[in-house]
Amino acid sequence: MLGLMMDEPLLVASLLRHADRYHGDTEIVSRTAEGPIHRYTYRQAHERTRRLANALTRLGVKPGDRVGTLAWNGFRHFELYFAVSGMGSVIHTINPRLFPDQIAYIAGHAEDAYVCFDITFAPLVEKMAAACKVVKGWIAMTDRAHMPAARIPNLLCYEELLAAESDGFDWPTFDENTASGLCYTSGTTGNPKGVLFSHRSTVLHACVITMPDATDLSSRSSILPIVPMFHVNAWGIPYAAPLVGAKLVFPGPGLDGASLYELFETEKVNRSSGVPTVWLGILHHMKQHNLRFSTLEKVVIGGAACPPAMIRTLNEDYGIRVQHGWGMTEMSPIGTINSPKLKHDALAPQERFELSLKQGRPVFGVDMKIVDGEGKELPRDGKAFGDLLVKGPWIVREYFRGEGGNPLRPGGWFPTGDVGTIDPDGYLQITDRSKDVIKSGGEWISSIDLENIAMGHPGVMEAAVIGVRHPKWDERPLLVVVKKAGALLTREELLAFYEGKVAKWWLPDDVVFVEQLPHTATGKLSKLTLREQFKDYALPTAAASAIPRDPARA
Amino acid sequence: MLGLMMDEPLLVASLLRHADRYHGDTEIVSRTAEGPIHRYTYRQAHERTRRLANALTRLGVKPGDRVGTLAWNGFRHFELYFAVSGMGSVIHTINPRLFPDQIAYIAGHAEDAYVCFDITFAPLVEKMAAACKVVKGWIAMTDRAHMPAARIPNLLCYEELLAAESDGFDWPTFDENTASGLCYTSGTTGNPKGVLFSHRSTVLHACVITMPDATDLSSRSSILPIVPMFHVNAWGIPYAAPLVGAKLVFPGPGLDGASLYELFETEKVNRSSGVPTVWLGILHHMKQHNLRFSTLEKVVIGGAACPPAMIRTLNEDYGIRVQHGWGMTEMSPIGTINSPKLKHDALAPQERFELSLKQGRPVFGVDMKIVDGEGKELPRDGKAFGDLLVKGPWIVREYFRGEGGNPLRPGGWFPTGDVGTIDPDGYLQITDRSKDVIKSGGEWISSIDLENIAMGHPGVMEAAVIGVRHPKWDERPLLVVVKKAGALLTREELLAFYEGKVAKWWLPDDVVFVEQLPHTATGKLSKLTLREQFKDYALPTAAASAIPRDPARA
Repeated sequence: MLGLMMDEPLLVASLLRHADRYHGDTEIVSRTAEGPIHRYTYRQAHERTRRLANALTRLGVKPGDRVGTLAWNGFRHFELYFAVSGMGSVIHTINPRLFPDQIAYIAGHAEDAYVCFDITFAPLVEKMAAACKVVKGWIAMTDRAHMPAARIPNLLCYEELLAAESDGFDWPTFDENTASGLCYTSGTTGNPKGVLFSHRSTVLHACVITMPDATDLSSRSSILPIVPMFHVNAWGIPYAAPLVGAKLVFPGPGLDGASLYELFETEKVNRSSGVPTVWLGILHHMKQHNLRFSTLEKVVIGGAACPPAMIRTLNEDYGIRVQHGWGMTEMSPIGTINSPKLKHDALAPQERFELSLKQGRPVFGVDMKIVDGEGKELPRDGKAFGDLLVKGPWIVREYFRGEGGNPLRPGGWFPTGDVGTIDPDGYLQITDRSKDVIKSGGEWISSIDLENIAMGHPGVMEAAVIGVRHPKWDERPLLVVVKKAGALLTREELLAFYEGKVAKWWLPDDVVFVEQLPHTATGKLSKLTLREQFKDYALPTAAASAIPRDPARA
Repeated sequence: MLGLMMDEPLLVASLLRHADRYHGDTEIVSRTAEGPIHRYTYRQAHERTRRLANALTRLGVKPGDRVGTLAWNGFRHFELYFAVSGMGSVIHTINPRLFPDQIAYIAGHAEDAYVCFDITFAPLVEKMAAACKVVKGWIAMTDRAHMPAARIPNLLCYEELLAAESDGFDWPTFDENTASGLCYTSGTTGNPKGVLFSHRSTVLHACVITMPDATDLSSRSSILPIVPMFHVNAWGIPYAAPLVGAKLVFPGPGLDGASLYELFETEKVNRSSGVPTVWLGILHHMKQHNLRFSTLEKVVIGGAACPPAMIRTLNEDYGIRVQHGWGMTEMSPIGTINSPKLKHDALAPQERFELSLKQGRPVFGVDMKIVDGEGKELPRDGKAFGDLLVKGPWIVREYFRGEGGNPLRPGGWFPTGDVGTIDPDGYLQITDRSKDVIKSGGEWISSIDLENIAMGHPGVMEAAVIGVRHPKWDERPLLVVVKKAGALLTREELLAFYEGKVAKWWLPDDVVFVEQLPHTATGKLSKLTLREQFKDYALPTAAASAIPRDPARA
């Protein structure tokens, strides 16, 4: 028997319509690619968004068509989010930090009908436009006076398109499972894969992230999303802010500490979000000029584990509550946010601090579990670690155009590629990447734990632990170390350093000293390259393996 | 083109499963009908709820079947909410304050397979059981030791049913539009009509009411819903609390000031909700014993307009933030909640206080508009008042079994039966009931405004204004007054008292003095009866209406 409630679909356009009707004079403030600060209201944003929908319709954009963006966080990007999805088309946010040929691949794979770009990216567009045969036109997100001089085919002016239209546009009603947005993940191997969000997933995700234990967003908030709108929809904030009537402050291209700090202060920002790196820039600027935050209260930090020292500084020196978050493009992206429960008020300060280092609890809608190599669920005891699987209405079922096949495990769980623990209170701690864990005789060894111990030795500059093929145990850990200049450090000394710190069978089977470790373009240790370098490495223990031997599992 | 997100339905059982997994040791505390305080955790509640689902299955309850309850707010009622809906059946909460024959009508109309009742209501069940042929059995929500001695056919013991079962029960997955709950509205005319909630509507409603501008519910909350679980699901709190991991405190039958205050204090309650009357009891008890709240921060008050003096007392004397709420059974029930925006911090205290008297802004998901007699939308200027229409995914589309036909207006809007204003910031103020408004020559006159003015006269004890038939103007206002003992008050004096306070054409056409006004069983003024009494009343202005005359519309 079905219920008798109204059949009202969850649609992206309804978020902006709600903001217009009930928060019409609340502001959206943007630092622009052209330079000046732009300022208007949700009502004006909605009016321009309707003009934009008319303009795109006139250009021939149809429901289901993709419209690409190469843009900073700003009001025109916000208008594109709502106009494109609102008319039933798909907003495809492209990361302008990718290489031009990657961008051309993505725009081609998505078959973007048009691509809209901030003038900052005119040189990039000029370089790649010829390779994007499928794109019918390129829309510069600016007015006539600031149109780029670049040689771009079918170049259109955003403000001219809007000026030619009326604001009479009724948002159509359709199935809430209709695609609303597309975002490609840049995996370490293979081609980027597209995640195709729906109106339903986008609106549900927006609802849940506003809750008090999540971003705690309301009509009393002024939020500055530092995390880019080209990176998983700025973690959903451009949708959540109109839902609750929060003031939105967009930093545009000004992602340096000075520019961000200025906006925090002038726009009375009290909520923000971003990756650890940008907070380093802000803290550096503030320390240098002896500055304080006047209104900032809470920040969500994710994308990478936030260094404990940064949490401490923000907390203790600046009075900011830092919340660790974790998610991924495939999860829209929020999976967990760290918020202490009422009972944690009783913890000692150090225990509370340690709790805050975890990635947090899943928001309602996300379910998660950890499993071993055979897919068997592991206990939620904060100690067992395993592959992290997730499930929920804003988690990917398959990639755009079936790329990569069926990604799901039995039961419909999505494997995150992360390894972690879940404690009895539901707090997730990411301990490793699945591909970096060392699988020894059916048991798992955390590469990160072993690296952290090595890094604690005064003679070690940098350390990496990878799994190397072993005839008996499948894989055994190999420690690769860069010594500090002048350090006299031996293999035996390092192995002895592990004693008493981990179970005996976790001890690396060998140590190799190198001049340097391989890193990715973004400065991260490249274990992929390292594994490639050592793929034929003969462990000393491998030779002895003809004689059965059982490393004690203390 | 559809998105590629997981097809995970929004189901009621997932709320409790989430609480079990991520808030397993958070408490549910209940004052019981048997007397003692009962205390357990979400994990234990989930375990017993699975046993209950097995017990109901064994009794032959099938998906779609209705299971009735006559119960206070307590842990067994909570278990029934989740077991019955979770297995795909429909929890039908019955208001035990109705007359026995009304209850028998409702249970019969709903075709309840079983009815579960708190032992308090054994005498009531004994009285009506014979009239409920459709009910297969009556389950006393208690253990063997407390089983009522009443003569009830097919009487079963809740705790015995649970004890006989295992906790092995997997919540089935089904269409989120499946019916989950049923609640009858007791209209002033006609038979009660059933509102049939769905899993989707229940979960969406639960998400939205946890938001910071609504109840601000989180894992840091301890919430005591005073509003009964038999009255529109205690405003959704039993669903919202497990969603966020809030501690739940159930008052059971102890709705007097002393019992409630004790629970507030012992259970460190910081959130609550209820109708104005119960708060009167609490405040009376506190004043009498010179008590203070130690932990209570915020309360949502709805069901009836909260007297301004009560808001002031709670705010100023006790430091409690009072939020006006408005809704109805047909809306699951939350429509609006009053929360000031950031910009309202700039208001003077008196202006903020006046804002707090309004019913509040719609939560996301609810859209509303006011229309005139022809259905034309009226401006959102805080002055124009009209019929309030609403729309959203947790608002009724039609009543159970088509009772009363199609209730919707063109465009799918539900008419609330309330009349109100909406200001430019989206705040609703209820000014009247649609049927009480006086429709004079196509224009509307607020009966409540005219009554409030009369009540301001020192000689008036009670006043009511109703519309009386008029040959020219359709209706004109008639003022019916009970004088204070000894007051010498004339018709002319009262009419003169209105001058300068309202537009001339709003002036009552006549005044009638009576000994007393009719009231309903719950003490409310019964305008229905009054209109019946005065339906043939000849207004002095009616005689003159043969000669066209135009009351000045100042």
